[in-house]
Amino acid sequence: MTCKACNETWPPPHHRIADFDLTVAYLFEDQFFPGWTVLVLKRHATELYELTEEERSQMIEEVTAMAKALAFEFQPVKMNYELLGNQLPHIHWHIIPRLAGDPAPLQAVWTVPHQPKSLDEQTRASLIVRLQTALHR
Amino acid sequence: MTCKACNETWPPPHHRIADFDLTVAYLFEDQFFPGWTVLVLKRHATELYELTEEERSQMIEEVTAMAKALAFEFQPVKMNYELLGNQLPHIHWHIIPRLAGDPAPLQAVWTVPHQPKSLDEQTRASLIVRLQTALHR
Repeated sequence: MTCKACNETWPPPHHRIADFDLTVAYLFEDQFFPGWTVLVLKRHATELYELTEEERSQMIEEVTAMAKALAFEFQPVKMNYELLGNQLPHIHWHIIPRLAGDPAPLQAVWTVPHQPKSLDEQTRASLIVRLQTALHR
Repeated sequence: MTCKACNETWPPPHHRIADFDLTVAYLFEDQFFPGWTVLVLKRHATELYELTEEERSQMIEEVTAMAKALAFEFQPVKMNYELLGNQLPHIHWHIIPRLAGDPAPLQAVWTVPHQPKSLDEQTRASLIVRLQTALHR
Protein backbone atom coordinates (compact mmCIF):
# COMPACT_ATOMS: atom_id res chain seq x y z
CA MET A 1 0.00 0.00 0.00
CA THR A 2 1.99 2.95 -1.20
CA CYS A 3 -1.05 5.15 -2.01
CA LYS A 4 -1.33 7.70 0.81
CA ALA A 5 -5.09 8.00 0.25
CA CYS A 6 -5.47 4.22 0.61
CA ASN A 7 -3.27 3.92 3.68
CA GLU A 8 -5.04 6.94 5.19
CA THR A 9 -1.95 9.03 5.84
CA TRP A 10 -3.54 11.83 3.78
CA PRO A 11 -5.59 13.90 4.38
CA PRO A 12 -5.14 14.18 8.17
CA PRO A 13 -7.98 12.35 9.96
CA HIS A 14 -8.74 15.34 12.21
CA HIS A 15 -9.58 17.36 9.08
CA ARG A 16 -12.52 15.09 8.30
CA ILE A 17 -15.80 16.86 7.59
CA ALA A 18 -18.06 14.07 6.39
CA ASP A 19 -18.18 10.36 5.67
CA PHE A 20 -20.32 9.85 2.57
CA ASP A 21 -21.19 6.48 0.98
CA LEU A 22 -18.32 6.46 -1.52
CA THR A 23 -16.12 9.35 -0.44
CA VAL A 24 -14.79 11.14 2.62
CA ALA A 25 -14.58 14.94 2.75
CA TYR A 26 -11.72 16.72 4.50
CA LEU A 27 -10.82 20.35 5.01
CA PHE A 28 -7.67 20.88 2.92
CA GLU A 29 -4.53 21.59 4.97
CA ASP A 30 -3.92 24.89 3.19
CA GLN A 31 -6.78 27.29 3.95
CA PHE A 32 -5.34 30.29 2.08
CA PHE A 33 -8.48 29.87 -0.05
CA PRO A 34 -11.06 29.61 2.76
CA GLY A 35 -13.12 26.45 2.68
CA TRP A 36 -10.95 24.48 0.25
CA THR A 37 -12.13 20.91 0.70
CA VAL A 38 -10.95 17.57 -0.70
CA LEU A 39 -13.33 14.69 -1.29
CA VAL A 40 -11.49 11.37 -1.46
CA LEU A 41 -12.90 8.19 -2.99
CA LYS A 42 -12.82 5.35 -0.47
CA ARG A 43 -11.76 2.69 -2.95
CA HIS A 44 -8.67 3.01 -5.09
CA ALA A 45 -9.38 4.18 -8.64
CA THR A 46 -7.62 6.69 -10.83
CA GLU A 47 -9.98 7.74 -13.64
CA LEU A 48 -13.73 8.34 -13.99
CA TYR A 49 -13.93 5.56 -16.57
CA GLU A 50 -12.70 3.01 -14.03
CA LEU A 51 -15.84 3.51 -11.94
CA THR A 52 -19.27 2.04 -12.61
CA GLU A 53 -22.04 4.31 -13.80
CA GLU A 54 -23.70 3.92 -10.38
CA GLU A 55 -20.50 4.95 -8.61
CA ARG A 56 -20.13 8.03 -10.82
CA SER A 57 -23.72 9.10 -10.15
CA GLN A 58 -23.36 8.63 -6.42
CA MET A 59 -19.97 10.36 -6.36
CA ILE A 60 -21.18 13.45 -8.22
CA GLU A 61 -24.06 13.68 -5.71
CA GLU A 62 -21.51 13.67 -2.89
CA VAL A 63 -19.42 16.34 -4.64
CA THR A 64 -22.58 18.39 -5.07
CA ALA A 65 -23.71 18.03 -1.46
CA MET A 66 -20.31 19.17 -0.22
CA ALA A 67 -20.24 22.08 -2.69
CA LYS A 68 -23.71 23.18 -1.60
CA ALA A 69 -22.70 23.14 2.07
CA LEU A 70 -19.57 25.15 1.28
CA ALA A 71 -21.64 27.63 -0.74
CA PHE A 72 -24.05 28.02 2.19
CA GLU A 73 -21.21 28.70 4.60
CA PHE A 74 -19.02 30.90 2.37
CA GLN A 75 -21.41 32.54 -0.15
CA PRO A 76 -18.78 32.29 -2.90
CA VAL A 77 -18.79 34.14 -6.20
CA LYS A 78 -18.06 30.77 -7.86
CA MET A 79 -17.26 27.21 -6.87
CA ASN A 80 -14.37 25.34 -8.49
CA TYR A 81 -14.43 21.53 -8.84
CA GLU A 82 -11.25 19.76 -9.91
CA LEU A 83 -10.34 16.11 -10.31
CA LEU A 84 -6.65 16.06 -11.22
CA GLY A 85 -4.53 13.36 -9.59
CA ASN A 86 -1.25 14.47 -11.11
CA GLN A 87 0.55 14.06 -7.78
CA LEU A 88 -1.72 11.44 -6.21
CA PRO A 89 -3.43 9.23 -8.80
CA HIS A 90 -6.29 8.21 -6.49
CA ILE A 91 -9.62 9.90 -7.28
CA HIS A 92 -10.02 12.99 -5.10
CA TRP A 93 -11.90 16.19 -5.87
CA HIS A 94 -10.75 19.65 -4.92
CA ILE A 95 -13.85 21.73 -4.12
CA ILE A 96 -12.88 25.35 -3.71
CA PRO A 97 -15.15 28.29 -2.93
CA ARG A 98 -13.89 31.41 -4.66
CA LEU A 99 -14.90 34.32 -2.49
CA ALA A 100 -15.35 38.02 -3.06
CA GLY A 101 -11.88 39.47 -2.47
CA ASP A 102 -10.13 36.44 -4.00
CA PRO A 103 -6.60 37.47 -5.09
CA ALA A 104 -7.07 36.07 -8.63
CA PRO A 105 -10.81 35.71 -9.21
CA LEU A 106 -10.48 34.85 -12.92
CA GLN A 107 -7.72 32.26 -12.52
CA ALA A 108 -7.39 28.75 -11.18
CA VAL A 109 -6.08 28.62 -7.60
CA TRP A 110 -2.92 26.87 -8.78
CA THR A 111 -1.67 30.11 -10.36
CA VAL A 112 -1.60 31.99 -7.05
CA PRO A 113 1.77 31.85 -5.23
CA HIS A 114 1.20 32.09 -1.49
CA GLN A 115 2.33 30.86 1.89
CA PRO A 116 0.13 27.89 2.87
CA LYS A 117 -2.23 28.87 5.66
CA SER A 118 -2.92 26.41 8.48
CA LEU A 119 -5.87 27.05 10.77
CA ASP A 120 -5.33 26.70 14.48
CA GLU A 121 -7.04 23.66 15.94
CA GLN A 122 -10.01 25.52 17.42
CA THR A 123 -10.74 27.53 14.27
CA ARG A 124 -10.53 24.39 12.13
CA ALA A 125 -12.79 22.36 14.45
CA SER A 126 -15.32 25.16 14.53
CA LEU A 127 -15.39 25.46 10.73
CA ILE A 128 -15.79 21.70 10.39
CA VAL A 129 -18.81 21.78 12.72
CA ARG A 130 -20.37 24.62 10.70
CA LEU A 131 -19.88 22.65 7.49
CA GLN A 132 -21.35 19.52 9.05
CA THR A 133 -24.36 21.59 10.11
CA ALA A 134 -24.67 23.01 6.59
CA LEU A 135 -24.55 19.47 5.16
CA HIS A 136 -27.50 18.47 7.34
CA ARG A 137 -29.71 21.42 6.41
CA MET B 1 -27.78 36.99 -24.07
CA THR B 2 -24.36 38.04 -22.89
CA CYS B 3 -23.14 34.50 -22.08
CA LYS B 4 -20.83 33.48 -24.91
CA ALA B 5 -21.58 29.80 -24.32
CA CYS B 6 -25.33 30.51 -24.64
CA ASN B 7 -25.04 32.68 -27.74
CA GLU B 8 -22.66 30.08 -29.25
CA THR B 9 -19.79 32.46 -29.94
CA TRP B 10 -17.53 30.16 -27.90
CA PRO B 11 -16.15 27.60 -28.49
CA PRO B 12 -15.79 27.91 -32.28
CA PRO B 13 -18.38 25.69 -34.01
CA HIS B 14 -15.77 24.09 -36.29
CA HIS B 15 -14.02 22.74 -33.17
CA ARG B 16 -17.01 20.56 -32.33
CA ILE B 17 -16.25 16.92 -31.59
CA ALA B 18 -19.56 15.57 -30.34
CA ASP B 19 -23.14 16.52 -29.58
CA PHE B 20 -24.21 14.65 -26.44
CA ASP B 21 -27.65 14.79 -24.81
CA LEU B 22 -26.82 17.58 -22.34
CA THR B 23 -23.45 18.84 -23.49
CA VAL B 24 -21.38 19.56 -26.59
CA ALA B 25 -17.68 18.70 -26.75
CA TYR B 26 -15.18 20.91 -28.56
CA LEU B 27 -11.46 20.73 -29.11
CA PHE B 28 -10.01 23.62 -27.07
CA GLU B 29 -8.46 26.40 -29.17
CA ASP B 30 -5.10 26.08 -27.43
CA GLN B 31 -3.63 22.63 -28.17
CA PHE B 32 -0.34 23.19 -26.35
CA PHE B 33 -1.58 20.30 -24.18
CA PRO B 34 -2.61 17.89 -26.96
CA GLY B 35 -6.22 16.82 -26.82
CA TRP B 36 -7.47 19.48 -24.39
CA THR B 37 -11.24 19.35 -24.78
CA VAL B 38 -14.07 21.45 -23.36
CA LEU B 39 -17.50 19.99 -22.73
CA VAL B 40 -20.16 22.71 -22.55
CA LEU B 41 -23.60 22.28 -20.97
CA LYS B 42 -26.34 23.15 -23.48
CA ARG B 43 -28.54 24.96 -20.98
CA HIS B 44 -27.33 27.85 -18.88
CA ALA B 45 -26.36 26.87 -15.33
CA THR B 46 -23.43 27.86 -13.18
CA GLU B 47 -23.07 25.34 -10.36
CA LEU B 48 -23.54 21.58 -9.96
CA TYR B 49 -26.24 22.20 -7.34
CA GLU B 50 -28.37 24.07 -9.88
CA LEU B 51 -28.80 20.89 -11.93
CA THR B 52 -31.20 18.04 -11.20
CA GLU B 53 -29.78 14.74 -10.00
CA GLU B 54 -30.69 13.25 -13.39
CA GLU B 55 -28.79 16.00 -15.22
CA ARG B 56 -25.73 15.49 -13.04
CA SER B 57 -25.74 11.74 -13.67
CA GLN B 58 -26.11 12.17 -17.41
CA MET B 59 -23.49 14.94 -17.53
CA ILE B 60 -20.85 12.91 -15.68
CA GLU B 61 -21.49 10.05 -18.16
CA GLU B 62 -20.79 12.46 -21.02
CA VAL B 63 -17.62 13.74 -19.31
CA THR B 64 -16.56 10.12 -18.86
CA ALA B 65 -17.28 9.10 -22.47
CA MET B 66 -15.23 12.02 -23.74
CA ALA B 67 -12.39 11.29 -21.31
CA LYS B 68 -12.33 7.64 -22.35
CA ALA B 69 -12.13 8.58 -26.04
CA LEU B 70 -9.29 11.02 -25.31
CA ALA B 71 -7.48 8.34 -23.30
CA PHE B 72 -7.83 5.88 -26.19
CA GLU B 73 -6.40 8.40 -28.64
CA PHE B 74 -3.64 9.89 -26.48
CA GLN B 75 -2.73 7.17 -23.94
CA PRO B 76 -2.18 9.78 -21.21
CA VAL B 77 -0.37 9.27 -17.93
CA LYS B 78 -3.37 10.94 -16.25
CA MET B 79 -6.56 12.71 -17.23
CA ASN B 80 -7.51 16.05 -15.63
CA TYR B 81 -11.16 17.07 -15.25
CA GLU B 82 -11.95 20.63 -14.20
CA LEU B 83 -15.18 22.55 -13.76
CA LEU B 84 -14.17 26.11 -12.92
CA GLY B 85 -16.17 28.91 -14.53
CA ASN B 86 -14.14 31.75 -13.06
CA GLN B 87 -14.07 33.55 -16.40
CA LEU B 88 -17.25 32.11 -17.92
CA PRO B 89 -19.83 31.12 -15.30
CA HIS B 90 -21.63 28.65 -17.56
CA ILE B 91 -20.96 24.99 -16.75
CA HIS B 92 -18.14 23.69 -18.94
CA TRP B 93 -15.61 21.00 -18.19
CA HIS B 94 -11.97 21.09 -19.19
CA ILE B 95 -10.87 17.52 -19.96
CA ILE B 96 -7.14 17.42 -20.43
CA PRO B 97 -4.97 14.40 -21.20
CA ARG B 98 -1.60 14.74 -19.50
CA LEU B 99 0.88 12.91 -21.69
CA ALA B 100 4.32 11.44 -21.15
CA GLY B 101 6.66 14.35 -21.81
CA ASP B 102 4.28 16.90 -20.27
CA PRO B 103 6.29 20.00 -19.23
CA ALA B 104 4.86 19.98 -15.68
CA PRO B 105 3.46 16.51 -15.04
CA LEU B 106 2.78 17.10 -11.33
CA GLN B 107 1.08 20.49 -11.72
CA ALA B 108 -2.23 21.79 -13.06
CA VAL B 109 -2.01 23.05 -16.65
CA TRP B 110 -2.76 26.59 -15.51
CA THR B 111 0.69 26.89 -13.96
CA VAL B 112 2.48 26.37 -17.29
CA PRO B 113 3.29 29.63 -19.15
CA HIS B 114 3.32 29.00 -22.89
CA GLN B 115 2.40 30.38 -26.28
CA PRO B 116 -1.08 29.11 -27.19
CA LYS B 117 -0.85 26.53 -29.96
CA SER B 118 -3.44 26.54 -32.75
CA LEU B 119 -3.69 23.52 -35.00
CA ASP B 120 -3.93 24.10 -38.72
CA GLU B 121 -7.35 23.30 -40.10
CA GLN B 122 -6.45 19.92 -41.56
CA THR B 123 -4.68 18.68 -38.44
CA ARG B 124 -7.60 19.79 -36.28
CA ALA B 125 -10.21 18.19 -38.53
CA SER B 126 -8.24 14.96 -38.62
CA LEU B 127 -7.93 14.85 -34.82
CA ILE B 128 -11.65 15.53 -34.44
CA VAL B 129 -12.46 12.60 -36.72
CA ARG B 130 -10.16 10.31 -34.73
CA LEU B 131 -11.86 11.37 -31.49
CA GLN B 132 -15.31 10.83 -33.01
CA THR B 133 -14.20 7.36 -34.04
CA ALA B 134 -12.88 6.68 -30.54
CA LEU B 135 -16.22 7.82 -29.08
CA HIS B 136 -18.04 5.26 -31.19
CA ARG B 137 -15.83 2.32 -30.25
